[in-house]
Amino acid sequence: MNILIIGAAGMIGSKLANRLISEAHIAGQALAHLKLVDVIQPQTPLPTAQSSYEIQTKVADLTRDGVADALIADEPDLIYHLAAVVSGEAEADFDKGYRINLEGTRYLLEAIRARNTHNGYTPTLIFTSSIAVYGTPLPNLISDDFQLTPHTSYGTQKAICELLIADYNRRGILQGIGLRLPTICIRPGLPNKAASGFFSGILREPLNGKTAVLPVDDTVKHWFASPRTAIDFLIHAASLSKEAVGLRCNMNLPGLCASVAEQIEALERVAGSKVLTLIKRESDPSIKSIISGWPEAFDAQRAIKLGFKGENSFDDIIKVYLEDDLMQR
Amino acid sequence: MNILIIGAAGMIGSKLANRLISEAHIAGQALAHLKLVDVIQPQTPLPTAQSSYEIQTKVADLTRDGVADALIADEPDLIYHLAAVVSGEAEADFDKGYRINLEGTRYLLEAIRARNTHNGYTPTLIFTSSIAVYGTPLPNLISDDFQLTPHTSYGTQKAICELLIADYNRRGILQGIGLRLPTICIRPGLPNKAASGFFSGILREPLNGKTAVLPVDDTVKHWFASPRTAIDFLIHAASLSKEAVGLRCNMNLPGLCASVAEQIEALERVAGSKVLTLIKRESDPSIKSIISGWPEAFDAQRAIKLGFKGENSFDDIIKVYLEDDLMQR
Repeated sequence: MNILIIGAAGMIGSKLANRLISEAHIAGQALAHLKLVDVIQPQTPLPTAQSSYEIQTKVADLTRDGVADALIADEPDLIYHLAAVVSGEAEADFDKGYRINLEGTRYLLEAIRARNTHNGYTPTLIFTSSIAVYGTPLPNLISDDFQLTPHTSYGTQKAICELLIADYNRRGILQGIGLRLPTICIRPGLPNKAASGFFSGILREPLNGKTAVLPVDDTVKHWFASPRTAIDFLIHAASLSKEAVGLRCNMNLPGLCASVAEQIEALERVAGSKVLTLIKRESDPSIKSIISGWPEAFDAQRAIKLGFKGENSFDDIIKVYLEDDLMQR
Repeated sequence: MNILIIGAAGMIGSKLANRLISEAHIAGQALAHLKLVDVIQPQTPLPTAQSSYEIQTKVADLTRDGVADALIADEPDLIYHLAAVVSGEAEADFDKGYRINLEGTRYLLEAIRARNTHNGYTPTLIFTSSIAVYGTPLPNLISDDFQLTPHTSYGTQKAICELLIADYNRRGILQGIGLRLPTICIRPGLPNKAASGFFSGILREPLNGKTAVLPVDDTVKHWFASPRTAIDFLIHAASLSKEAVGLRCNMNLPGLCASVAEQIEALERVAGSKVLTLIKRESDPSIKSIISGWPEAFDAQRAIKLGFKGENSFDDIIKVYLEDDLMQR
């Protein structure tokens, strides 16, 4: 299996590369070639001595002329397209958001189509969409057939890419799947200024002996998956047949709905009550307002039937962080 | 009021121009300037002697460099964007469909954004979307919050334009409204080869003493509006405030759900039983298959609350054809 990851330097991209290398198989086939691409140098995972596969890293910008064609010149069987400008940046910089999140995807799709027209090349394309495709007013539990009405340019760009991928999939140009990832928690690394940052921060920082600010009420609910589960989703998607996925190839995923109070209770169970004093409650009306428009929970029946599995408790989500990130350092 | 119609040579565009000219007012304001644009010469309606407004016609292709900027250089208050390649052509010619239906709209949106950035120009943009944004499996009655999963490139392009218009609307670059028009019936003029053509043909041709082929069963149901009602929708949309429309600025409209049998019964009531012999039943599996994926009916609550009104009976739809088209010749 020849695999291309675009956006391989990001948190999800690098964890996906590490998983592919450690398992050396995907969808029942041996890993043969793995190309890791991003606008900054992707970290090169180290193959073991007996590895039978090749790893290649490349710094490239998908939105530059000819780059998409060059990236797929060796006709990867499986393409992960994870590259995107994040929500805050796409909102602050209109042109950059549309150029990277929309045009970047279109360059990739058109490069695939040119090759498909030429010789029938039909790769599997796995695309990371987002629950940001949903905008208020929303039901408490969002069904698989609820409309997409994003309230950010980022969500708009993701929703448009979903529509394009579905059309290219329907036309047989590629086998496409779009996965609307839940909010990833616990994100490893340093705190960031994303409005959603506190969902990870109130767990990660206390687990590292540092203080974290909680800007919203304990009753706020949201939709989560651990980084490990997100990688499980991306790996599982590669094993699905075109027939199983069907024409509605973009989907919600089974996450875990949890309130901030439930997050904190899980933290206490895993790390004891002492660390709770590191959570500082500082109400922030601006963040409260942003969060109030976010989805709380999904009834992800289609993805569950297709075999995607989410977390069952926040204790599990915290343990994933301890095992995969905290103890790895 | 300075009004621009892009796609003014089409059936809807020319009827809209005629209506604007005959009423000389829209949304409580007098018509001052009407610019009619299309890739072929729009028919110039004749202003009456005492007209206080100007009419200009222009042949222009929105997808050519600089055309969108030039079309809005006089800063129209209200823009109707009706121009599109139809469903069958967008499916047969991938590049042409995306270029005209998607890129054409983007050129227009970007021209508006450039002017908005420059001097705050914020026109009202009324866009004709389509019920082709929906794809099977569909409920018998489609609610306002049902997902858009088009099964044609045309429907995909319309759904993408809806998302873009909603984002530009949300950002305050324009006041946008997208109207998902029902299937227009009775279309005047000659029979065409569209899969939907028979819905009009089985009424229009017998009313003109000609035979028409019915390729589907009498039980087939679909969602209709007369051309006059479609123009009513376009006119009414111009009177709505940004606050009333809100962020979900694309919407289903109140049409009439009717079976082929109900269409034929209405024809008999209006024109007598003799004309029914002109309808030739010739089953066509290909057309049956296409039609089976189409929406049957919508619960268009939002549009009804906003004051849009559809037809109540097929008798009314036939009478509109007699009054507006058959008797005008």
